Amino acid sequence: MSDGTIELVVVGSVGLDTIETPHESREDILGGSASFACAAASFFTRVGMVGVVGSDFPDPCSALFEAFRIDREGLQVEEGKTFRWSGVYEQNMDHRSTRSTDLNVFADFSPELPPSYCAAPFLFLANIGPGLQLHVLDQAEQARFVVADTMDLWIDVARDELTQVIRRVDMLTVNESEARHYTGRHNLVAAAADLLALGPKYVLIKKGEHGSILFSEQGTFVMPAFPLETVTDPTGAGDSFAGGFMGALASLGDVCEAGLRQSLVYGNILASFGVGAFSLEGFQALDRAGIEDRVGLFRSMIHVP
Amino acid sequence: MSDGTIELVVVGSVGLDTIETPHESREDILGGSASFACAAASFFTRVGMVGVVGSDFPDPCSALFEAFRIDREGLQVEEGKTFRWSGVYEQNMDHRSTRSTDLNVFADFSPELPPSYCAAPFLFLANIGPGLQLHVLDQAEQARFVVADTMDLWIDVARDELTQVIRRVDMLTVNESEARHYTGRHNLVAAAADLLALGPKYVLIKKGEHGSILFSEQGTFVMPAFPLETVTDPTGAGDSFAGGFMGALASLGDVCEAGLRQSLVYGNILASFGVGAFSLEGFQALDRAGIEDRVGLFRSMIHVP
Repeated sequence: MSDGTIELVVVGSVGLDTIETPHESREDILGGSASFACAAASFFTRVGMVGVVGSDFPDPCSALFEAFRIDREGLQVEEGKTFRWSGVYEQNMDHRSTRSTDLNVFADFSPELPPSYCAAPFLFLANIGPGLQLHVLDQAEQARFVVADTMDLWIDVARDELTQVIRRVDMLTVNESEARHYTGRHNLVAAAADLLALGPKYVLIKKGEHGSILFSEQGTFVMPAFPLETVTDPTGAGDSFAGGFMGALASLGDVCEAGLRQSLVYGNILASFGVGAFSLEGFQALDRAGIEDRVGLFRSMIHVP
Repeated sequence: MSDGTIELVVVGSVGLDTIETPHESREDILGGSASFACAAASFFTRVGMVGVVGSDFPDPCSALFEAFRIDREGLQVEEGKTFRWSGVYEQNMDHRSTRSTDLNVFADFSPELPPSYCAAPFLFLANIGPGLQLHVLDQAEQARFVVADTMDLWIDVARDELTQVIRRVDMLTVNESEARHYTGRHNLVAAAADLLALGPKYVLIKKGEHGSILFSEQGTFVMPAFPLETVTDPTGAGDSFAGGFMGALASLGDVCEAGLRQSLVYGNILASFGVGAFSLEGFQALDRAGIEDRVGLFRSMIHVP
């Protein structure tokens, strides 16, 4: 973060979420995959955000991005309303259902990388349509390490394009149900093998509160989640994880097995802070020392002498 | 295992299981919590089995116990039929339902420790009625480290006795749903805190394929499960885990934080072998070198440089 060079580009959604949990509800709070990923990454590296907001995007939200020193040259502002999502979490936060999705300006979004982003070595394609992800890949041929996320919807409606994305990225991140849905295999080891066979060097399967597993030809890295007594809002957990991971990896500058594992621990810990509050509030009072404290605690929790 | 001194006593059920899985079915195969726990423990220490079988108990099953060098002075043989359980695993092995439970000679079981067992330093009270577990505790006052398992049934029908058991043991092992059911708390960190408040030094919450978490006043140890591509029969996984853990701990002879964690890894690995085949077949071709190989692989899978 010593200069303005963009080390990591994040492409995804920026939106306003209305969220109901068993304990508390919030209306029109800052959300979207790019928001969570960029904020989490910002603790480690200089990150550029590619997305779109409407002319109604609240100034305090822009100010928050500024506070995180997120570069917003790639954030388009279009006449109209910002993307909105509304959802409700059931009793135990284990399941959520979507109440409404209003794409608004996101409906015509075409992600364009400013010239200063095209040389960034790290690229995170958060969950957007695989056609848009392919369009970004065409612009980011200099990226050294590209990670793509996706969701069930795209497996259903854009499977062929999604397969092209998987073939072209270095790492695919999916949750358990997505891995099963795409491959038709219930066992995650078998599902990961099918996904690796398509070409990516790494497949990260996310299991929420149960942790994650990184699969590659070189071996398997199994990481539990940081055990939390209170989860306030799980929205964006996967994006915070990916952002923290990519930010930490970009700050190392090199992609080796040790660096990947260390960076996944950072992703894990950023996600644990993210779900402790609504929107980006879990990151607002956080600093690098707070992150390192929890990383140290987590390392002691998984250590086998 | 250099001499005949019993280091670990296991009290539990010995039975004949009829099991249907989506791929294969088996009839009247050796099962029961004590069978799995004793076999897993036998790789590490001299174990004595306390349980009951009927006069119909098949000779090959007795021969198998002998092959594992399990001491059976505490195994009562009563006139009548052996305990039988029948269950079916659904599509993805995630859920099972019980078809029938015939207690037979187990209905009048009263666990009695032979004099040579009373001085054993390690005791595992596998899942039997908490009243019987209390009866064993009265006979095993010299035991240095006692672990008790339980099940939902006892939380419903014998909660007060179960609470007495929890107060008197060093470690309670429960699965996620049991921890939630007993405490009324969905969050496992909160549930474990409630259970620890009753008196045990350790609470181990088992999450099946998602691993386990050991809670204590000293801290938390989070361990993922060994990722398996094939699970043939999950029956007895928790007992294999507990048996492997207690056997390894007994072979160390000392209960320290490092030893607990190392022994939990052995439990984890024994469970992974156990679910790879029906009954005790996963242990029959296994030797200590095979265990150490997988322990080494597992350690490499969870290592963060």
